[in-house]
Amino acid sequence: MPSALANLRVVLVAPRNPLNIGAAARAMSNFGFSELRVVNPYEVAFRDARSAVGASPVLANTKEFATVAEAVADCVMVVGTTAIRHRQLQQPLKVLAKGAISIRGKLQRAPVAILFGSEKWGLSNDTLSHCHWVLHIPTREEHQSMNLGQAVAICLYEFVRAPKRDKMAADKRKLATLGTVERITETLLEALHKSEYINPKTGQLAEEKLRRLIRRLTLEEADAEVVLGMLHKIVWKLEQNTKPKT
Amino acid sequence: MPSALANLRVVLVAPRNPLNIGAAARAMSNFGFSELRVVNPYEVAFRDARSAVGASPVLANTKEFATVAEAVADCVMVVGTTAIRHRQLQQPLKVLAKGAISIRGKLQRAPVAILFGSEKWGLSNDTLSHCHWVLHIPTREEHQSMNLGQAVAICLYEFVRAPKRDKMAADKRKLATLGTVERITETLLEALHKSEYINPKTGQLAEEKLRRLIRRLTLEEADAEVVLGMLHKIVWKLEQNTKPKT
Repeated sequence: MPSALANLRVVLVAPRNPLNIGAAARAMSNFGFSELRVVNPYEVAFRDARSAVGASPVLANTKEFATVAEAVADCVMVVGTTAIRHRQLQQPLKVLAKGAISIRGKLQRAPVAILFGSEKWGLSNDTLSHCHWVLHIPTREEHQSMNLGQAVAICLYEFVRAPKRDKMAADKRKLATLGTVERITETLLEALHKSEYINPKTGQLAEEKLRRLIRRLTLEEADAEVVLGMLHKIVWKLEQNTKPKT
Repeated sequence: MPSALANLRVVLVAPRNPLNIGAAARAMSNFGFSELRVVNPYEVAFRDARSAVGASPVLANTKEFATVAEAVADCVMVVGTTAIRHRQLQQPLKVLAKGAISIRGKLQRAPVAILFGSEKWGLSNDTLSHCHWVLHIPTREEHQSMNLGQAVAICLYEFVRAPKRDKMAADKRKLATLGTVERITETLLEALHKSEYINPKTGQLAEEKLRRLIRRLTLEEADAEVVLGMLHKIVWKLEQNTKPKT
């Protein structure tokens, strides 16, 4: 959904750390988003972020706004973010995984803004009053506050996470046939007899145990051939060594 | 699933930036994980991260290891991470959303390690040879490489994202720890050298291939001990035979 991605506006409100601004831009570039906006940033931080070595092209196009209202003026939906649970929110709170579904839906047709607050204070009540609802990243009660760059990365990852309802985890491995598995069993048995691991008296039991063990391994076809080659060589060496020297 | 979360080992291999080490620790604390390990870190970075103002308690308990093998010795599954698609990987690649399901299942019962490579190079082939499979964070083709702290945060978020579906994924088999698996690898290597299966000139390659092969087998704990016993006996016999008769 490339045009849908272009509809997202990531808005950093009053960011203070150039590394976080850079990290937000980098994550956007990683996941295919392009429209970064900053509201009332700490000027030095914004300048430093833009001039940093390896700054993302996203940063070069970042627009600066004086107010949240101006930064979200072209959007049809505005979503706040918080890692804090206990705050008395006036807006509905949605856990990220669920909220992302409704954001993805909206992005198909129109611009949506997602707001991230300053490193220290998060989003103020005034800023939150611009939001239709608030996304919650489910962090641990005892340590809720996230790093800004990481919070942005996680939200963006969730937005692109499941574009086509991932085809189920088909196991594509080509497993060894039971013919090969049995040859491995027999060759290993031979090696174990020759190296006296197996006591001739209890040999039958050992053989059954070994057969079950080998089948519990999920041997792929190519690996099985390699293993068989190894065992043949070991048996050959064991034989060679026991032959009387002539 | 608090005890399940305690089973995850986040392993940073050769990290160079203290901010990234700190960011990884903070995300762990946010999402309820506690066991951070570093392998061969840039020492100054590790020290700076630990002494930073507001450093997470996770960092105070971070353990340092000289090798990947030691860092994952108590785990039953080791998972690499990459944002890069085109690399010729020897290991199966799973998209994060799917891979997380199998990690969550394993975490119910036993320790799992997730490895993140250095900021500059990602995970080396040697490190990848310790991995059962590799997690892929689905970034955009044109800008795949992610910030380390953000990559850690996204993976951890995905692991705790949907806790209630876990029971169905729980894997009930008791798998061998990587410590045992590595001992099997080493003992088999010894047998293969002694039986001249491995050419000394190409030994390093053979070792990595063998390490990957052994990890593709899903060895259960009890079986692993049996296999180890077999291999010890075979090696003993190979040694005995090559000794000059007195």
